[in-house]
Amino acid sequence: MTQGIRISISGARSAAVGREHGVTPSELKALEPVVAQAHRALRAERSQKRYGFYDLHKDKAILGEVQRAAKGFSKARPQNLVVLGIGGSALGTTALVTALKPPYYNLLSEEERGGRPRVFVMDNVDPETFHQMMRICPPKKTIYNVISKSGGTAETVAQLLIVVDQLEKAVGASALKEHLVVTTGALERGAKPNPLQALVKKRGLVSFDVPPNVGGRFSVFSSVGLFPAAVLGMDLKALFAGCASMDKQCSRASLQDNPAYLRAAVEFLGSRDKGKSISVMLPYADALRDVADWYRQIWAESLGKRCNLDGTNTAWYAGQTPVKALGVTDQHSQLQLYLEGPNDKIITVLGVAAFRKRVPIPKAGPSVKGPAYLHGSTLNKLMAAERKATVDSLKENDRPVMAVNFPQVNEFTVAELLYMLEVETAMAGRLFDVDAFGQPAVEQIKVLTRRNMGAKG
Amino acid sequence: MTQGIRISISGARSAAVGREHGVTPSELKALEPVVAQAHRALRAERSQKRYGFYDLHKDKAILGEVQRAAKGFSKARPQNLVVLGIGGSALGTTALVTALKPPYYNLLSEEERGGRPRVFVMDNVDPETFHQMMRICPPKKTIYNVISKSGGTAETVAQLLIVVDQLEKAVGASALKEHLVVTTGALERGAKPNPLQALVKKRGLVSFDVPPNVGGRFSVFSSVGLFPAAVLGMDLKALFAGCASMDKQCSRASLQDNPAYLRAAVEFLGSRDKGKSISVMLPYADALRDVADWYRQIWAESLGKRCNLDGTNTAWYAGQTPVKALGVTDQHSQLQLYLEGPNDKIITVLGVAAFRKRVPIPKAGPSVKGPAYLHGSTLNKLMAAERKATVDSLKENDRPVMAVNFPQVNEFTVAELLYMLEVETAMAGRLFDVDAFGQPAVEQIKVLTRRNMGAKG
Repeated sequence: MTQGIRISISGARSAAVGREHGVTPSELKALEPVVAQAHRALRAERSQKRYGFYDLHKDKAILGEVQRAAKGFSKARPQNLVVLGIGGSALGTTALVTALKPPYYNLLSEEERGGRPRVFVMDNVDPETFHQMMRICPPKKTIYNVISKSGGTAETVAQLLIVVDQLEKAVGASALKEHLVVTTGALERGAKPNPLQALVKKRGLVSFDVPPNVGGRFSVFSSVGLFPAAVLGMDLKALFAGCASMDKQCSRASLQDNPAYLRAAVEFLGSRDKGKSISVMLPYADALRDVADWYRQIWAESLGKRCNLDGTNTAWYAGQTPVKALGVTDQHSQLQLYLEGPNDKIITVLGVAAFRKRVPIPKAGPSVKGPAYLHGSTLNKLMAAERKATVDSLKENDRPVMAVNFPQVNEFTVAELLYMLEVETAMAGRLFDVDAFGQPAVEQIKVLTRRNMGAKG
Repeated sequence: MTQGIRISISGARSAAVGREHGVTPSELKALEPVVAQAHRALRAERSQKRYGFYDLHKDKAILGEVQRAAKGFSKARPQNLVVLGIGGSALGTTALVTALKPPYYNLLSEEERGGRPRVFVMDNVDPETFHQMMRICPPKKTIYNVISKSGGTAETVAQLLIVVDQLEKAVGASALKEHLVVTTGALERGAKPNPLQALVKKRGLVSFDVPPNVGGRFSVFSSVGLFPAAVLGMDLKALFAGCASMDKQCSRASLQDNPAYLRAAVEFLGSRDKGKSISVMLPYADALRDVADWYRQIWAESLGKRCNLDGTNTAWYAGQTPVKALGVTDQHSQLQLYLEGPNDKIITVLGVAAFRKRVPIPKAGPSVKGPAYLHGSTLNKLMAAERKATVDSLKENDRPVMAVNFPQVNEFTVAELLYMLEVETAMAGRLFDVDAFGQPAVEQIKVLTRRNMGAKG
């Protein structure tokens, strides 16, 4: 059996950081019935298929589908995969790419990339960036995966219009299907097709459905994340196995035995009773930096809500601000604040036991001599020593800290973490008493943007 | 005269977002004598040369020095510039590169780069990343700029030991000087040389001094930032002109006329009186995303302090947590929280009037049709419309927002912003009553790390 991640909340307990900042056994005990009730509610909603994210990894058919499609596109040896998508349509893929492909992946030769294309996730409409991407990725050599559940995301549709125009000029409208893959909601019977659905029909494009009960920020294990992952040669079965392993652990009803619930409880109690308005995710591994960015969305957008769950309190203003950081780098940027500033954070440190490379630090040579403890050591040991120093200092200064330890970073363990954070978010929604699955304010902005663009009505 | 940035705090005033969340005229008025006194103290310290950052742009000699050195190294047509440095030795260069070089710069051909090298800022000791960088950048084709004011930063020295070992093998010890440039503190008379100083002497390397009165996070306009900038062909005179322009504006004694002081006052009053524990920097331009990361360091490390300025209160725990965000991308990630979550943030929106590219969105074509308001528009207009929607929504929801508007992003305007934020931080240090120029907790971590590495003593 594959070795999985290990989750610990011990550094956030009162035994480690005191009663003022850490959770006490009795506080956790008091929350048990609340969690048990929330668990029952979430289980009921899961069995009613209200939230699809829980069960995405059981859909083995989708793996065959995305892999067949990826294989089909690979025949023409595309040099670039460009994802057009924003928010939940982009962050999952970016997290997986940074974690699972080598550093500086796009700078590697085709051979070093194992014949796989470079990857560009276009999650903004910055004209300078988009213009440059179009120059760097000639349409003839590129496949585009446009992703929007609603099919109406202004940023993504704008990108698509530009790409289709260029593709038509480069390869002709009839060859669009060799370069463009659409991921969007399924066309409902009798409904007017959205722009992406209409395009699929008109040009016979390969397309994937986003299940109707899966929201953007919970969609990484749907076709949204899986098709790009397949094109890039990730081990999709291992991703699903990681989900399944964590599904098992996160299905336990008991707060004390469920890592997702324990973490949600710490964040909630900290936020409600101990002034912990900020949740920091601090990976000690470059590969996990965009997992922290993915977390930033799911935590902010799910919990940041004006109304409580049943809508009776419209001045609830719930939420905790997620912050992404990076070790050791941020020891020279954020740690001063984390140790000596306001004690308003809970910090999750992600550690990696075995990096995929080992870099020795040479013994003292003829030109330069450092401190003795560096010579003959490794960057791996230095990274671990710094992580331990940070965690110990945080606790020493009564700053609550949780740990997630990776035996190594791979498809299985990354999927475990993402799945756990999804369940944690669902439970946190219940504890914070908000609808974790909507985003009403974002809809507001869309209306205003249209108006600012001069749209009628 | 070059057009500069425009700063506005109007969206953070009570007139825009109400008295509970915005600053009132009388609150600003009441702060005037405090600011006036702090201004006198800072001016005195400036004239005593206690803090060097104020006057770096007056050192015209350094421009000639770094440019001559850069020209010398360019003769061998190096393919890569690798900066070895962490925290203040890295963040300034990264901010300048992202703002002033084209997007995807390292993916461009040598010709497209104007004959300049690719650039890698190594601000971590992640073994996977460092290993890959060493593969991608063959030592023979690379120049390294190792930067550490103390010369003893563990991460940077570890990197240096690896690089020197590889260079010795590739080009020989006697040719180190053709590949390695050192930026460190000047050797004081009678002191034992730090490892970098010793290396300079032993191998006759080109080196630059970090002035003793300039700390890492205030060093971007010293040789720390200027040598990489020169190698990459940035307009150093325009950088200095931007500093000078902002120096003039930020030298005004009156709170109401000084943009840096006004901004510091809003952050301080918000933090002290209105629960604004978080300061978000939200650029609507990919080019400015790492300026936000640079801000994250200067704001966190300068203000996050356990003791007050005169050391009489050792449980002061001051600070405000800086958060970097990115528009429009984070509209689909963070904005829900910013609009509907706890009203605990002051958000600075950076806007750009003229991007360096214009990307038209095509008229409706034969394959795909979007909403009418997109067709025939531009990504530039869409970006502007989204920014306005966000700012208006924030104000509508009583969330204080400040603005910095760039006519365009260039050396002059970026330097203006960085210089203003430096002065703002210095003033904020006075208002928050902390020593903005130390980082005691970071020193603690260094000791612990050495111990974890098995060092004696």
